[in-house]
Amino acid sequence: MPSPLNPNLAATFAPPVMEARRWLDGVQFPPERPLINVSQAAPVDPPPEALRQAIAEAALNDPQAHLYGPVLGLPALRAEIAQQWSADYGGRIRDSQVAITQGCNQAFCAVLATLAGPGDAVILPTPWYFNHKMWLDMAGVRTVPLSTGAGLLPDPEAAEALISPATRAIVLVSPNNPGGAEYPADLVRAFYDLAQRHKIALIVDETYRDFDAREGAPHDLFTDPDWADTFIHLYSFSKAYRLTGHRVGAIVASETRLAEVEKFLDTVAICPGQLGQIAALWGMRNLRQWVAGERAEILARRAAMVAGLGALEGWETLGCGAYFAYVAHPDPRPSPDFARALVREAGVLLLPGTMFMPKDDPAGQRQLRIAFANIDAGGIAELMQRLAGLAR
Amino acid sequence: MPSPLNPNLAATFAPPVMEARRWLDGVQFPPERPLINVSQAAPVDPPPEALRQAIAEAALNDPQAHLYGPVLGLPALRAEIAQQWSADYGGRIRDSQVAITQGCNQAFCAVLATLAGPGDAVILPTPWYFNHKMWLDMAGVRTVPLSTGAGLLPDPEAAEALISPATRAIVLVSPNNPGGAEYPADLVRAFYDLAQRHKIALIVDETYRDFDAREGAPHDLFTDPDWADTFIHLYSFSKAYRLTGHRVGAIVASETRLAEVEKFLDTVAICPGQLGQIAALWGMRNLRQWVAGERAEILARRAAMVAGLGALEGWETLGCGAYFAYVAHPDPRPSPDFARALVREAGVLLLPGTMFMPKDDPAGQRQLRIAFANIDAGGIAELMQRLAGLAR
Repeated sequence: MPSPLNPNLAATFAPPVMEARRWLDGVQFPPERPLINVSQAAPVDPPPEALRQAIAEAALNDPQAHLYGPVLGLPALRAEIAQQWSADYGGRIRDSQVAITQGCNQAFCAVLATLAGPGDAVILPTPWYFNHKMWLDMAGVRTVPLSTGAGLLPDPEAAEALISPATRAIVLVSPNNPGGAEYPADLVRAFYDLAQRHKIALIVDETYRDFDAREGAPHDLFTDPDWADTFIHLYSFSKAYRLTGHRVGAIVASETRLAEVEKFLDTVAICPGQLGQIAALWGMRNLRQWVAGERAEILARRAAMVAGLGALEGWETLGCGAYFAYVAHPDPRPSPDFARALVREAGVLLLPGTMFMPKDDPAGQRQLRIAFANIDAGGIAELMQRLAGLAR
Repeated sequence: MPSPLNPNLAATFAPPVMEARRWLDGVQFPPERPLINVSQAAPVDPPPEALRQAIAEAALNDPQAHLYGPVLGLPALRAEIAQQWSADYGGRIRDSQVAITQGCNQAFCAVLATLAGPGDAVILPTPWYFNHKMWLDMAGVRTVPLSTGAGLLPDPEAAEALISPATRAIVLVSPNNPGGAEYPADLVRAFYDLAQRHKIALIVDETYRDFDAREGAPHDLFTDPDWADTFIHLYSFSKAYRLTGHRVGAIVASETRLAEVEKFLDTVAICPGQLGQIAALWGMRNLRQWVAGERAEILARRAAMVAGLGALEGWETLGCGAYFAYVAHPDPRPSPDFARALVREAGVLLLPGTMFMPKDDPAGQRQLRIAFANIDAGGIAELMQRLAGLAR
């Protein structure tokens, strides 16, 4: 383009979900074989009616719902998170250690901006969440990939070997996107100890925590009185309450870090959207049972996925949990070609493993991510039939 | 803090509006002299009832209002802007040259990220909009201040003398925040020619364009068939439709630049909030007359401000338009001290000029910004009485 282009922007890739959406252009899906879209982790149904009514009620009758609020979010929502999380994780979280963002991706960007700048480095286990990689690229921060082993779990010792003076943080996502792995509490603790020892930050993105198959707290980091010196927790309201279109997420971190986050959010957001925050707060106060039902449904779908994939000849399930199955496929084509071909050959849209790791990592060529939470038992059965019926 | 801190974040200041809000802590405002808050450009009333009903209706009955949308925004809203702007500015804007953002501040950050990285430079006329400066600081981009002269207008020749090989863009805000100046069309054109000649970008933030006192298009840049090679337009729905709490803004730029913007927005936003976009679209289609009435009211307040300030002994109006009056005050104290004292001495919250320019620029010490759009004729009269009654 004639006017200038920041090379850090040019260096990163286009949004994978939008790229995959373009594969649909010009493809007809017959009524007897409609598209099965398992490309994006996104509820396909709106929130429950009572929550929609709460939003409508605020839109009509609460003037504040239309006006600017504090940069770091509604005080009542921050307090509710502090209280519920303190109970859920058995730790002590103050209201002032919670900030609300326009979605969890923004939470990640804001936190990263406070931690690392050009020339710094951040460790991401692979397969990684591609938006994390994109943001690091655009910020001029070097991504250090950490290969995972059995069960797609990262190894703290392998991570330690990658730490250099430039390293600012390690980022974990648990339950994992794209891998579906639920990181054991002692593994998360080992990474925390590692980060603490090296005076770097440990970020844990817990967007999918409401769909963890395990009961109780997924880790014990908040029980350490000094957690805020090292640990940064990220959360999303998008999945549990089906609020993707409202963009509400959260950061739990030290007050000193949130003072820096506030600078970033002031310029990028001014404040989170008010109706989304009102919806999130209403959900937290009124939908705990409903979310438990959602979790049970996702866990049932997960079981159907594990069974279905296990019966597919040549396919290997590398990880399956929360919203995602991450698999190795038997097709001779590299995964980007295979994924693209699946649109026409099977009416299925999913993402190739190459979108979740460095280009020179050959593992991605054989791998696929299936965001199965969006399809019900019938949809999963149909998906398995289509994959089983592929020409080999 | 124990874990790392990006020095680029540490180097910038805390959000001025939030800082000023903290000046209110512990101050009592008696009922007969309530606080007059002219610190932030923010409507204090919600949008009209019909618009609130449109939002509530979508929340209740439109499932899409709760789900992810395209990164660059709702196609219908992009198309509506392209169509109305093409007519308003007498140019040709394609739907694909419009992107929707979570507010105009995000629009600025996204565009800047595509233009400039660490070590690059951007020219900002002073007094500047502080959030622009904050973002440049955080991105490691050097801000080159351009002093303005009579009427707070920047001079293209002075700007040209500041252009170096590191310069990536010139940013104008018209009508201006904080100065209130409406830049003449031929001045905007002169900056466009300058930017074109040097192959840098000209960004014009037109957040306040709906309150411009002049009739017709504020500039003719869109009439140049090659406008997209140089010009980037920013807009906000916050003021015209009183949608500050929904965070909706827009970028008009070349498709190639928007492809880069899409990367930034995908990581920082995923998509703009859906209800805000629905509200903006409904407003554009139904509230043109209502916005005209809002403009007439703001222009009446502006006239009251000009008259009131003109009658205040020792005060000088440097600029007055759209939402803002920018003034030189007669108090012996430096403006940060004076502004802070005004909270107790007059029950008035406004921002000192030092927040809008480099620390070493002495002009800021004598200047204040008054965001008068938030107070009606009675409020303006009361403000003038309180300023006139100050001990001298």
